[in-house]
Amino acid sequence: MIIPRGFLFATEEAAIKKPGRDDLALIYSTADAVMAGAFTTNKIKGAPVKLCLRRIRSGEGRAIVINSGNANVCTGPGGLKDAARMAREAARELSIGERLVYVCSTGVIGTPLPMERVMPGLKRLAAKAGSAGLEEAARAIMTTDTFPKIASKRFRAGGKEVRLAAIAKGAGMIRPDMATMLCFVITDMAIGRRPLAAALKNAVEGSFNRISVDGETSTSDTVLIMANGLAGNPLVTGTKSAGFVAFKEALDAVTSSLARMIVKDGEGATKLVEIELIGAASAGDALKGAFAIAHSPLVKTAIYGNDANWGRIMSALGASGIRIKEQKVDIFLERLKIVAKGTPLGKDKEAEEILKKNSEIKITVNLNLGPASRKEKVLTCDLTEEYVKINARYRT
Amino acid sequence: MIIPRGFLFATEEAAIKKPGRDDLALIYSTADAVMAGAFTTNKIKGAPVKLCLRRIRSGEGRAIVINSGNANVCTGPGGLKDAARMAREAARELSIGERLVYVCSTGVIGTPLPMERVMPGLKRLAAKAGSAGLEEAARAIMTTDTFPKIASKRFRAGGKEVRLAAIAKGAGMIRPDMATMLCFVITDMAIGRRPLAAALKNAVEGSFNRISVDGETSTSDTVLIMANGLAGNPLVTGTKSAGFVAFKEALDAVTSSLARMIVKDGEGATKLVEIELIGAASAGDALKGAFAIAHSPLVKTAIYGNDANWGRIMSALGASGIRIKEQKVDIFLERLKIVAKGTPLGKDKEAEEILKKNSEIKITVNLNLGPASRKEKVLTCDLTEEYVKINARYRT
Repeated sequence: MIIPRGFLFATEEAAIKKPGRDDLALIYSTADAVMAGAFTTNKIKGAPVKLCLRRIRSGEGRAIVINSGNANVCTGPGGLKDAARMAREAARELSIGERLVYVCSTGVIGTPLPMERVMPGLKRLAAKAGSAGLEEAARAIMTTDTFPKIASKRFRAGGKEVRLAAIAKGAGMIRPDMATMLCFVITDMAIGRRPLAAALKNAVEGSFNRISVDGETSTSDTVLIMANGLAGNPLVTGTKSAGFVAFKEALDAVTSSLARMIVKDGEGATKLVEIELIGAASAGDALKGAFAIAHSPLVKTAIYGNDANWGRIMSALGASGIRIKEQKVDIFLERLKIVAKGTPLGKDKEAEEILKKNSEIKITVNLNLGPASRKEKVLTCDLTEEYVKINARYRT
Repeated sequence: MIIPRGFLFATEEAAIKKPGRDDLALIYSTADAVMAGAFTTNKIKGAPVKLCLRRIRSGEGRAIVINSGNANVCTGPGGLKDAARMAREAARELSIGERLVYVCSTGVIGTPLPMERVMPGLKRLAAKAGSAGLEEAARAIMTTDTFPKIASKRFRAGGKEVRLAAIAKGAGMIRPDMATMLCFVITDMAIGRRPLAAALKNAVEGSFNRISVDGETSTSDTVLIMANGLAGNPLVTGTKSAGFVAFKEALDAVTSSLARMIVKDGEGATKLVEIELIGAASAGDALKGAFAIAHSPLVKTAIYGNDANWGRIMSALGASGIRIKEQKVDIFLERLKIVAKGTPLGKDKEAEEILKKNSEIKITVNLNLGPASRKEKVLTCDLTEEYVKINARYRT
């Protein structure tokens, strides 16, 4: 694993989650860092999201504290105060300005944080910055995730080696009572706020905004990036330099890799499904159509049942509002053409074999209404009984 | 059961479905009838839908023939020819004009109809008009439905007793490979084409367009109404008369009742859920918000698990794009207030009891952004492992 210079981590157990699991994590930069963020578009936002939205305007930060087990969402004015208290406590222990601390929470909605346990936990956490590795931090932010999600890259900029690493959590995309997509990216790149924000926006658009487990949008989704400049490369101030391009590529790779892990770890998922829609009449249609397939419970259950039920794909596209001509649609499962010009090719058996053999499946639909280059790709997973079980029985 | 005068029914087995079940149905009016229809908005439409869309322009009809087991969708130009052949065969046997016969098909997509069995079956079917009752017709159009869906009403218009009856099928809303929502309404009302069409449009909007099992839109959804005037009431030519109002009320009641049955019989459903959104900032918001809740897999799995997880309702609303203020939202489960001004009231246990005890549940959300009268109601069902099973394993 590649760890950027000047970042310290810690984890701690504050009994917010079930006992025996760390539920607090700290990401701390020993040097001043520039920051950028991307947040949920849900109009109901958690208190920590509101706090981060305010602080990120400065483009500066030194620390991120995260708790799992309680999302601090729909907790009223008290929730906002709790989030601010968490930042203040960490800032005091770390001897940094309060405004430089960001707070993220993930877990149950509508229950106030158990501050009597969170506050002493935070004190212990901040006091031991550097005692844990990035993987332990990735574990501490997990909720229903079944594995920690980490990705990292090393690249050169201005003759210097630059390091970039990120952790994420997902599971349901998203379960407002026990999950959320969170991602924290750290790098020792010397880069200005604007190019940092531009690169993050672009990376999120191409990764986390191209995945769906169940079509739900969390109240707490947060991506934060922190760049402390300790790589010593010449400061990147624009978006044209070779350094920026290398940074952008590394960031895209890391966020795409994490996005893929999140879908792979989707609640109850047995299959990762890549849906590519090409030849759309417009770029908007390409994305809308791809997501219409990705969100269709009928397509998702069919894939779970190893049934290449292309009729459900046609129907999902037909209902999506995009331009479509039945007699022009081609559908491929991996490289096998199963529908040509809207007509099935009788490949059900071969298709079933492909579905049975692979845990990662690619479906390509060519609408043949525009150039093949007008395309969008989204990642999703199948819909299984296990998803229903997890989500029906969680709180009871 | 109330059967309108002058309508004859027949059913027949043509081995399109599994053996031992009738899969052809005929609804035949012995007198000329006016007709109106409502059809799927899916851009991929079945061949029978295309045929009905053309014929309904005349506003006239005498017979509807329906087959279950094969939807005749995505079957190319051959499919259109097959639908036309079906109408022609029935017309010949019934000695009526071909243009007066409507065809509906429901079942698998993308497989040509087995015309070698359908055609002799149709001949037998048409030859025995009057040999079956309406309930048998309701059974013959079933696919994954677990019970036949019939509703009827009797009312007075212009001093005469008028009768109205309807049958429907649903199951998945909708499973493009084995289902579709179909509804056939018959009445002996003497009514003109325009008021008939107006009443149907209004009835469909308030019933079938207010339900969702899984958010999917079929390629074959069809509602047809046939009015043959045999009640002998003075012809209703406008939408103001007492006769029209009585007719409209009866039609609304019958379609609402069938819509409710369709949701109750939703694939794998264990609970019928009525969602009422009141106090929205606009009428559009009321409907959009109500459907956002109805479509949320997280809300639907929570209800299945007897968990009144109001956080998921808040999150679904927040992500729906409607105007919402967290600190204004009230949520009720039946008459129990569980959220006041965006804050939970700690009623999880009472709520769980209500969910456990009832197979029909009402959730009311007051956004408190507009008058309480600005409201919309939709019906949905819970999401269960059984839904996944049915849809994952059907074709295999």
